[in-house]
Amino acid sequence: MTTPAERAQLLTPAAVEAAYGLIQPYVHRTPLLTCKTLDSIASTPQSPESLVGTPFEGQTPARPKFRLFFKCENLQRIGAFKARGAFHALLRLIEERGEEEVKRRGVTTHSSGNHAQALALAASTLHIPAHIVMPSISTSSKIAGTRSYGAEVIFSGSTSVEREAVVAEVQAKTGAILIPPYDDFNIICGQGTTALELEAQYTEQVRSGTLDAVITPVGGGGLNSGVATFFSAKSTRVFGAEPAFEGADDCRRGLQAGERVPKVSTLTIADGLRTPVGLLNWEVISNKRKVEGVFAVTEEQIKATMRLVLERMKVVVEPSAVVGLAVCLFDEDFRKRVEQEGGEKGWDVAVVFSGGNTTVEAIAKLFG
Amino acid sequence: MTTPAERAQLLTPAAVEAAYGLIQPYVHRTPLLTCKTLDSIASTPQSPESLVGTPFEGQTPARPKFRLFFKCENLQRIGAFKARGAFHALLRLIEERGEEEVKRRGVTTHSSGNHAQALALAASTLHIPAHIVMPSISTSSKIAGTRSYGAEVIFSGSTSVEREAVVAEVQAKTGAILIPPYDDFNIICGQGTTALELEAQYTEQVRSGTLDAVITPVGGGGLNSGVATFFSAKSTRVFGAEPAFEGADDCRRGLQAGERVPKVSTLTIADGLRTPVGLLNWEVISNKRKVEGVFAVTEEQIKATMRLVLERMKVVVEPSAVVGLAVCLFDEDFRKRVEQEGGEKGWDVAVVFSGGNTTVEAIAKLFG
Repeated sequence: MTTPAERAQLLTPAAVEAAYGLIQPYVHRTPLLTCKTLDSIASTPQSPESLVGTPFEGQTPARPKFRLFFKCENLQRIGAFKARGAFHALLRLIEERGEEEVKRRGVTTHSSGNHAQALALAASTLHIPAHIVMPSISTSSKIAGTRSYGAEVIFSGSTSVEREAVVAEVQAKTGAILIPPYDDFNIICGQGTTALELEAQYTEQVRSGTLDAVITPVGGGGLNSGVATFFSAKSTRVFGAEPAFEGADDCRRGLQAGERVPKVSTLTIADGLRTPVGLLNWEVISNKRKVEGVFAVTEEQIKATMRLVLERMKVVVEPSAVVGLAVCLFDEDFRKRVEQEGGEKGWDVAVVFSGGNTTVEAIAKLFG
Repeated sequence: MTTPAERAQLLTPAAVEAAYGLIQPYVHRTPLLTCKTLDSIASTPQSPESLVGTPFEGQTPARPKFRLFFKCENLQRIGAFKARGAFHALLRLIEERGEEEVKRRGVTTHSSGNHAQALALAASTLHIPAHIVMPSISTSSKIAGTRSYGAEVIFSGSTSVEREAVVAEVQAKTGAILIPPYDDFNIICGQGTTALELEAQYTEQVRSGTLDAVITPVGGGGLNSGVATFFSAKSTRVFGAEPAFEGADDCRRGLQAGERVPKVSTLTIADGLRTPVGLLNWEVISNKRKVEGVFAVTEEQIKATMRLVLERMKVVVEPSAVVGLAVCLFDEDFRKRVEQEGGEKGWDVAVVFSGGNTTVEAIAKLFG
């Protein structure tokens, strides 16, 4: 068994490219959209009044210039980037163990959200039995979604200890192989294909430009560490974004303290980002040459950003999806950096919208 | 002054093509999207139970096959197809009267919704003063939107008599030229460019297929009559869709009675479709060779369809935008026709999503 630090050495752009070769027939090439209205809002200085009560109170608001490019993984299969990692992990498993063994044993995972549906879809597509452990308090639409791909759903309590105990039971009974949601080499390479695709689309659209930065949400860190892996030998800077509510910014706090925060307990509205960063993911994200910074935003900032995306871009996103854009709009440290380094020309920034799995009732609860 | 019937003779595909040549630099080529989930839902027979209490109760549910193509005018400039007609009407006006006269006199219209913002945008782009009469009860976001393009907003009462009186005042005072919202040759040709674009996109995407039908919402009828004008010499059938609530289906009822219904008073949630069909629009829509039928859907069907589009397609639409899709999903007469004429192969149907101008509060009110 190698250590996370040793495995992280193998996370290379070539590994992401190889992942793309495998999963391309199974995933959507989601659009990279632009929106002049959001460029203009992001490029307008915040008012001094709006900074009152924030850590930036009393500072002169930054004057950054943004050209934003939205990678719409909310339009990915199952409505989130998680389809990339699930297909990749399962295809690799079949490659390594042989189809016969994987078909016989099946696969399992625990997830209350997008990874559950992603693995259920990948498994049904590749004709592998899937046993998905979901907390019994999961919303009925997510349970129905997972079942609709033919997966068996097994209920558990909602703490990670309770979930893992049920997974162990499933494994003991069926021999099913665990496909973890984020702390996994193949999952990270799969999620990293988001970066490969958005860079190609940026080049198609902008011909002679340079993509200055990419910002993605950070929950378990699969997406962010995958994207950072792909860009690790390029000039494009990678940043992460988290909710701050009830300590959900475990990654940002860990970076400040110089040590990964192993536990998080938060009910942030960005429910896809309630998990601590995984061990392998941490190896990438805590490497300053790979991820230049992680920023945190408030619940109100997430809501305001979600409103802008729904009302102005006319695109449905879940709260977790917009934390990167919220950093661009509201974080004065980030905005000052764009002003200082981007100057008159500004920065071309790709913002990954990680998913769009919400319901009209959930929107009503947030804004009603 | 020619009659509507005489002017309708001049509504030809060539007139729509000419309009496109003029407005192309000013409007978005909005995407034509597909969605396998919605194809599958539309192609599944309704349950006999779900027909109880509808005019189709007791009938054997139809088994149509749909391949749907969504023309996303919710992603058009100002968030609705209305930008097409407004730019076209204003560009023609400048062509006919000369820039000097139009600049001196300015333009005016009355609208509580998308036409107000569309004319304000077109006028500001072409440096023409605009005076927009809006009911004082209009939502503040729409008033702010119209003002944000530099238009002067003048308030009126909300009945059409009150609105028109204020327009007359504005005209007397400023000499401003009226640009009507739908009952107008140039507006109809402008809206018809939606059809030209979607046909070209369909051909790019489907190579060897035939577009069997197009369905659009019918309010004043500008969009539907424009689309029908473009397809009038082609095999693609054109249909219209309306809300049924409180008699909002004036067009459908008019067609049944053989006479245009001149007045409508409804508070349907499809607030863009509360107007009666215009005179010139009626000449086109009541011509069976141009528009083969108009169908009406309930408020609940509109809500259910809006939910599907937001949650499954992840695209924000206003209630008015989805009445065409609601017909495909719920109207057994339409579905039977698709089954009978489309057979095993089914129909390729383009559905025009007319606009996306809603707010998170409005969504909360509908679904909270």
